[in-house]
Amino acid sequence: MGHQRKALRSGMGRSTADSITVCGLDLTNDVLGKLNLGEFAFLEIKGRVPTPDESVVFNAMLATLVEHGMTPMAIAARLTYLGAPESLQSAVAAGLCGMGTTFAGTAEGAARILQEGLASGGGESGLPQLAKKIVADHIAAKRTIPGIGHPLHKPIDPRTPRLFQLAEEHGVSGRYVELMLLISAEAERALAKPGMLPVNATGALGALACELSIPWKLCRGLAVIGRAIGLVGHIAEELRDPIAREIWERTDEESSSSPFQVAANR
Amino acid sequence: MGHQRKALRSGMGRSTADSITVCGLDLTNDVLGKLNLGEFAFLEIKGRVPTPDESVVFNAMLATLVEHGMTPMAIAARLTYLGAPESLQSAVAAGLCGMGTTFAGTAEGAARILQEGLASGGGESGLPQLAKKIVADHIAAKRTIPGIGHPLHKPIDPRTPRLFQLAEEHGVSGRYVELMLLISAEAERALAKPGMLPVNATGALGALACELSIPWKLCRGLAVIGRAIGLVGHIAEELRDPIAREIWERTDEESSSSPFQVAANR
Amino acid sequence: MGHQRKALRSGMGRSTADSITVCGLDLTNDVLGKLNLGEFAFLEIKGRVPTPDESVVFNAMLATLVEHGMTPMAIAARLTYLGAPESLQSAVAAGLCGMGTTFAGTAEGAARILQEGLASGGGESGLPQLAKKIVADHIAAKRTIPGIGHPLHKPIDPRTPRLFQLAEEHGVSGRYVELMLLISAEAERALAKPGMLPVNATGALGALACELSIPWKLCRGLAVIGRAIGLVGHIAEELRDPIAREIWERTDEESSSSPFQVAANR
Amino acid sequence: MGHQRKALRSGMGRSTADSITVCGLDLTNDVLGKLNLGEFAFLEIKGRVPTPDESVVFNAMLATLVEHGMTPMAIAARLTYLGAPESLQSAVAAGLCGMGTTFAGTAEGAARILQEGLASGGGESGLPQLAKKIVADHIAAKRTIPGIGHPLHKPIDPRTPRLFQLAEEHGVSGRYVELMLLISAEAERALAKPGMLPVNATGALGALACELSIPWKLCRGLAVIGRAIGLVGHIAEELRDPIAREIWERTDEESSSSPFQVAANR
Repeated sequence: MGHQRKALRSGMGRSTADSITVCGLDLTNDVLGKLNLGEFAFLEIKGRVPTPDESVVFNAMLATLVEHGMTPMAIAARLTYLGAPESLQSAVAAGLCGMGTTFAGTAEGAARILQEGLASGGGESGLPQLAKKIVADHIAAKRTIPGIGHPLHKPIDPRTPRLFQLAEEHGVSGRYVELMLLISAEAERALAKPGMLPVNATGALGALACELSIPWKLCRGLAVIGRAIGLVGHIAEELRDPIAREIWERTDEESSSSPFQVAANR
Repeated sequence: MGHQRKALRSGMGRSTADSITVCGLDLTNDVLGKLNLGEFAFLEIKGRVPTPDESVVFNAMLATLVEHGMTPMAIAARLTYLGAPESLQSAVAAGLCGMGTTFAGTAEGAARILQEGLASGGGESGLPQLAKKIVADHIAAKRTIPGIGHPLHKPIDPRTPRLFQLAEEHGVSGRYVELMLLISAEAERALAKPGMLPVNATGALGALACELSIPWKLCRGLAVIGRAIGLVGHIAEELRDPIAREIWERTDEESSSSPFQVAANR
Repeated sequence: MGHQRKALRSGMGRSTADSITVCGLDLTNDVLGKLNLGEFAFLEIKGRVPTPDESVVFNAMLATLVEHGMTPMAIAARLTYLGAPESLQSAVAAGLCGMGTTFAGTAEGAARILQEGLASGGGESGLPQLAKKIVADHIAAKRTIPGIGHPLHKPIDPRTPRLFQLAEEHGVSGRYVELMLLISAEAERALAKPGMLPVNATGALGALACELSIPWKLCRGLAVIGRAIGLVGHIAEELRDPIAREIWERTDEESSSSPFQVAANR
Repeated sequence: MGHQRKALRSGMGRSTADSITVCGLDLTNDVLGKLNLGEFAFLEIKGRVPTPDESVVFNAMLATLVEHGMTPMAIAARLTYLGAPESLQSAVAAGLCGMGTTFAGTAEGAARILQEGLASGGGESGLPQLAKKIVADHIAAKRTIPGIGHPLHKPIDPRTPRLFQLAEEHGVSGRYVELMLLISAEAERALAKPGMLPVNATGALGALACELSIPWKLCRGLAVIGRAIGLVGHIAEELRDPIAREIWERTDEESSSSPFQVAANR
């Protein structure tokens, strides 16, 4: 006796001998040479081609997290490539595995509070009231408010005004962006940190994802798409000018010459 | 006593409090809203912005492998997401790990024989002679010639003429494309399979990567960039219309009701 | 100007031309042929060799999650191996990526409530009082109590009494095991589900990890060690009797013949 | 129209409400407290419980590659854990992805030449003749002979004599070990490097895997099992005494202060 069967359905893609269909479009005639890569990503996620305005904003969103220099992810990808040069795909995969809560979690966190806030009818008494409630709830629960402040990019994260400007110019800015900005202002007020908690790049990404009706659970995927490109870029550089072996040897040498550490939890 | 130190250098990206530089460009002002995602990928890999012609061709190359329906990679990513929904990045990573020799190895294989063929001066007596030699060497060594033929897309892979047409129209087509076509024709002749070994999509990608001076070792990276996007698309669909649990339950049920298999190599 | 440097220290292992030291022991003379694999894992995690009693219990703990048949992780590993047979390590890695909150999170969750409960002095007024408080807190916050109940193994998870019996016989059972059992009893009482919320295998593992002073953040590592073995076992079977391609083809065929689904969030 | 269906069979494990069967044994009664972790791994791979002699040798084989200090894999796992501390499993997975040809490929390479050599009837004119042929073939093809020589462990890899001694004492040593030793001697003679190409640890592992009738394609799995344990050990240390952030910051700082590198392949 088995479980109740459910049909396996998908509209992502299908092939015949002479055609490949992707999300309802013909790959050869409708996509290749017609859509740029960001537009194809939009099609994959939303199931339709973006408008020209949406295309500009979405390409910019994906571009935001492609490259941030020698991150832990980039170093991990390079070290993995050193050990398995025959598996470039696994080096990128290893790098992506580090795109967790520490670095990418805040985009989805920001999108979540915005989506849940407005979905719950929280905006009816006005967005400023909703922002006040969100900030107060986080402070009461001693939780960090996602999407505001940045350890390095102070007083403002330069990516945020540019992303919001593009959204404004292309008609993609709305209540979510407004709410995100209000949360930042309210947090600075309530925590007495004027000018110190501006919307950061992941907060901007989260707000714009909301404007495009992308579910918050998928926001980390935007970071993953961008970073996969950046990691291939790092492996391209590693091929030209390798540093992984040097990082390994230095780390091994220094840690090997440390006095033996007795484990704390014996 | 340690090893000879080597400086750790990188030109991929760097940040200050108010700016982020990527491959020598200012992310905020030169990239966001200016470059589409494929152009940014070109910048990451080649270290310079593509020309408008190169942009069209490179975006098409990356788009080629984004989506091919319910591949093993897509299924693996969905099953991984079922077990670890908090780690979307790891679901994509798991899917990418399957982008190995079976599915993506031929793009780099094709690029390799083209690059090594022309680099070794093998083209001096003419490309037809070189194609003859490459095919003969593979047949003698009983090795498959990468980049030609396809199990499903027969007699031609619809993506190839489109990619080559775009390359031609945008001035990116040259000796590598020519050599790839000659190898296909020579293989059909030598193996007596007329019309059955056309250049496939990975062969076309390999040839175009050569035209753009991308090293063959990096060709798998082009597939990885595309497929990362496709895998996020599959997870987006899995969120809307999940099938991973059903695939699991069916597989578990059927394999559990099989008679117990004694391992062959006891 | 750089950051404040911190020395890189490690006591895990070091090598000279004629010796390899692991956690302070000589690999060749003290480990090979002397410690079984579970004892070595104990050494790696705790920094010391286990007693014979601890060895029995810890080997049993690690063995608990090695194999649970055709799990999503096993299927994902097999599909990945199909695509990249040259990278067995990446197939195992892909499988492990699915060992997330859905399947392995509860061991660490159980260990966490036990460790935090007793660390906070919560046991001073007696373990039954502490169990009552833990259950009440979870019910009030509408959170699932980790480590109790099981969808399949009802009324009891057969692994739990065996693990607890081994712990008892080998002197490893104590207040954490007691508290875990009290939480189960109290949850059945408070939720009016008599006999339906027994301690499950991950709850037992969590409690025993506490008895061995393993931090809750590391509990998922015990599952990972076991499952890595199980995944290699599945790949061994896949080599003898492959099923990945069949799973792929069935899934692709059925989903390709479904009517095209319009994405819900256009 | 679909493909020819094939049944999905597996003997790895199955569960009922009150029992879990693994490779034909009852997990609760036959495995927990009865088999150590290495014996369970043998069961998973071979489908039967090892003899006591086989157990000693197989546990030693798996233990050989558990820990080798601050390898690229260990560093990659720690960096990944820094970015995604909620996904310990993905940190181990990222580390495993680097267990490729550079570090683990030689065990399978050694096992392959031994298995293919003896399977092809190559041993009929005597093992010394076969060793001569294998070495000559590799030299003619300019291929490295796997399993001999070591960059650090010179003149001998201390693990090898110990593994071969254990195999001898426990009746597991035979023609494969003999052939491996003959290959080493012949290579030293043919390449005029006396005493410089002894059997290394992966060569010993490859030979012993052959003695246990483990297919060469699975040898990397033995390395993967061991190293998964070692990587959990490194994460345990990282929790007690973190170094990943320091490695990241040093690498970022130094590479960020390098003059901008123009990409070589523009």
